[in-house]
Amino acid sequence: MTITFELVDKILNTSYEDIPESVRIHAKKSLFNWLGVTIGAINHPSIQMMIDMVEELESAPQVTVLGRKAKVDMLSAVLINGASSHVFDYDDTHLDTILHPSGPVAPIVFALGEKFGFSTKDLIRAFILGCEVELRISNAVYPSHYRLGYHSSSSVGVFGAATAASILLNLDREKVAMALGLAGTQSFGLREMFGTMAKPFHPGKASQNGLMAALLVQKGFTSSTQVLEAKCGFLNVMSPTYDVNKVLIDWGNEWEFEKNAFKPYACGIVLHPSIDACIQLSKLGKMEDVKEIFLRVNPYVLELTGKETPTTGLEGKFSIYHTGAIAFLEGDASENEYNDELVNAERTVAFRSKINPIPDKDIRKDKVEATLELVNGEKHRVYIEHATGSIENPMTQAMIIKKFTKLTKNILSPQQMEEVIRLTMNLDELNSIHPVLQVLE
Amino acid sequence: MTITFELVDKILNTSYEDIPESVRIHAKKSLFNWLGVTIGAINHPSIQMMIDMVEELESAPQVTVLGRKAKVDMLSAVLINGASSHVFDYDDTHLDTILHPSGPVAPIVFALGEKFGFSTKDLIRAFILGCEVELRISNAVYPSHYRLGYHSSSSVGVFGAATAASILLNLDREKVAMALGLAGTQSFGLREMFGTMAKPFHPGKASQNGLMAALLVQKGFTSSTQVLEAKCGFLNVMSPTYDVNKVLIDWGNEWEFEKNAFKPYACGIVLHPSIDACIQLSKLGKMEDVKEIFLRVNPYVLELTGKETPTTGLEGKFSIYHTGAIAFLEGDASENEYNDELVNAERTVAFRSKINPIPDKDIRKDKVEATLELVNGEKHRVYIEHATGSIENPMTQAMIIKKFTKLTKNILSPQQMEEVIRLTMNLDELNSIHPVLQVLE
Repeated sequence: MTITFELVDKILNTSYEDIPESVRIHAKKSLFNWLGVTIGAINHPSIQMMIDMVEELESAPQVTVLGRKAKVDMLSAVLINGASSHVFDYDDTHLDTILHPSGPVAPIVFALGEKFGFSTKDLIRAFILGCEVELRISNAVYPSHYRLGYHSSSSVGVFGAATAASILLNLDREKVAMALGLAGTQSFGLREMFGTMAKPFHPGKASQNGLMAALLVQKGFTSSTQVLEAKCGFLNVMSPTYDVNKVLIDWGNEWEFEKNAFKPYACGIVLHPSIDACIQLSKLGKMEDVKEIFLRVNPYVLELTGKETPTTGLEGKFSIYHTGAIAFLEGDASENEYNDELVNAERTVAFRSKINPIPDKDIRKDKVEATLELVNGEKHRVYIEHATGSIENPMTQAMIIKKFTKLTKNILSPQQMEEVIRLTMNLDELNSIHPVLQVLE
Repeated sequence: MTITFELVDKILNTSYEDIPESVRIHAKKSLFNWLGVTIGAINHPSIQMMIDMVEELESAPQVTVLGRKAKVDMLSAVLINGASSHVFDYDDTHLDTILHPSGPVAPIVFALGEKFGFSTKDLIRAFILGCEVELRISNAVYPSHYRLGYHSSSSVGVFGAATAASILLNLDREKVAMALGLAGTQSFGLREMFGTMAKPFHPGKASQNGLMAALLVQKGFTSSTQVLEAKCGFLNVMSPTYDVNKVLIDWGNEWEFEKNAFKPYACGIVLHPSIDACIQLSKLGKMEDVKEIFLRVNPYVLELTGKETPTTGLEGKFSIYHTGAIAFLEGDASENEYNDELVNAERTVAFRSKINPIPDKDIRKDKVEATLELVNGEKHRVYIEHATGSIENPMTQAMIIKKFTKLTKNILSPQQMEEVIRLTMNLDELNSIHPVLQVLE
């Protein structure tokens, strides 16, 4: 049997009841966290541009643009909602492979859930299995695929989207394999786009590609049923090296999805230890007394976030200089600290020249060794072992709720917020996703 | 200046008048040939499935599905029309790099031409430059990119689609670079899909991705402006080796687009010499007298078309065994010879076991040395230097018209055919594409 079919069998043979309760609880948290970041960015200019485009297409009002009055057709909805969830770079992250699992999958759960009224148990199962498939494929190709230059949140994410859509559309074994094939051949996403609107576009488009694949296969469309392992298939073509065993190993016992972490800060996870460190250092010296701050980090951190002179909020997220500066100066790195104005403020620009990252391959990429040198010669050292939001030091339920509240405060009323929190935290007890969407209307 | 911007400047500085007349004539032929293959397949089940999907999305009637009464939104139209043009594998081919240039580009010309009423000179210019950009990028990455496993008609085609759309939407320099970026990051298409409906899906989807990129950038969306040359850009990520100089070399003097050939046979161009040879051999011996036919071909031919036991018409196109058999038995390899019934007919199956391809790296891939061995020991040898439809032995105008007629005979009335032929052959004299579309209604 081929790997692709083995995977399909694992998917189809995993019922809601087969999924451990801890995983299901994590799914509810993930969907809630995803909803917050999605609604939070829904009025962002880049999302407005996507809505403008969809309006030009005279799209039919089928499915909700989350946090808006607008409805658009299913395929456009997953594009927009998926993109919105990644605008702030504030969505969930599989720390082992730096993939944002919910981005391509959750939009499908919401869109098909709204259109067809599926039970929330069906939705949660599709969501979990979609993410699990993504993450296992991600494990198989990491780090080779990512290092080559692919943004795996879309290039691998498309498999998660197709999986979730296939489950909900109730495709049979052969068709699920074909949906994975038709999705996999649409795998895409270049890391060169980081720092532009094209980056958040990626998970939305992956969601759209995966849903389109499942919809077409449902209508009889064919594709290869061995997209993963074939000579000209995904693994061989798009990853210089890979370990195909990681796709299936310990299925049902080990849940990659549980390694999905939530972000306390609105930038790439690799910067989070440095943010924790700079916030701690800010308590040990005043701004005007700082001579230098040294951040000893894994070289990889600098590769991703080495922008020395960012000029926009988006670029600021890829700058350890800006990020270190605002963490020290503002004591946070939420979306507020990544606006264009603050990136260009004299005070920020002046301070960021004091941030000195030092690449050191002996420092693991989820750690940082930070040193504060004051003008008077005093030195303070901080060592972050587990950043806030890591698996070892996760965000608490209260922190996640606070994050949701902060993100949606200009979009939802306090009553709406409260209702959404209550409903999504108990999603498995609802008959469908409709009550959540009614609150958002 | 970056390569991407240099390319953008070349594009924007090439006016309709700058394009040699021979190239413009070739464009009219290409569009006509494309229209024939597109209308010809528009009732194919795979296209019906795509239309069914689009209907489920309640798409708005903006743009014509060519050869149908239906209209759908712009983005869906280019998907469907682009896919239809490749269903029969009968569209145009850049022989040097085995890329089908019109597939992703022509749908945009028709869709935006219909929606916005652009002049046919603007449309022809956009079409030519879109194809030219594709083919130059294809030259830069060939054969490495294709060999790795990418179907360049989509993976490179997406740049052609974005170019044509950017020109028609009148994007400025910066925005054209960004449209190329947003298109390039959506580059996709695995060769594993060959022999399934996913293959013709590729050029349609590339067209959709390219048009979406241009539409979004028009609304203000940003992306990288150095998608070609960046470290994590298209060339480095998707092609193990490449020659970036080929993108710009001799721009305006050498037109790659003129090396675009039309197919007399409804299968991959690599099989055409073998088809010519088998048709010639069929005049030198009767079916029942044939012992063996040996086809000495480049190993590459067999790599692409080595399916020994095809069971569908689509698979037959990837089988030198089936193709050799029908060329000998039926004297042609048009769409009629690639239906499921004929592929499985006893007579075909029996004869295809007599077809013996011999890989020989000393035979160039556009040639074949064919030997017919009769039961009585007689031997006949045929050597095809330039297959029908090659640059050296091109299809005549009359052959192209005959091809159009044969393809559309069940869809268009004789009057419609005649009118479409007359109008598209003189496309540059029309004010817009509307008269062509009115005939098709």
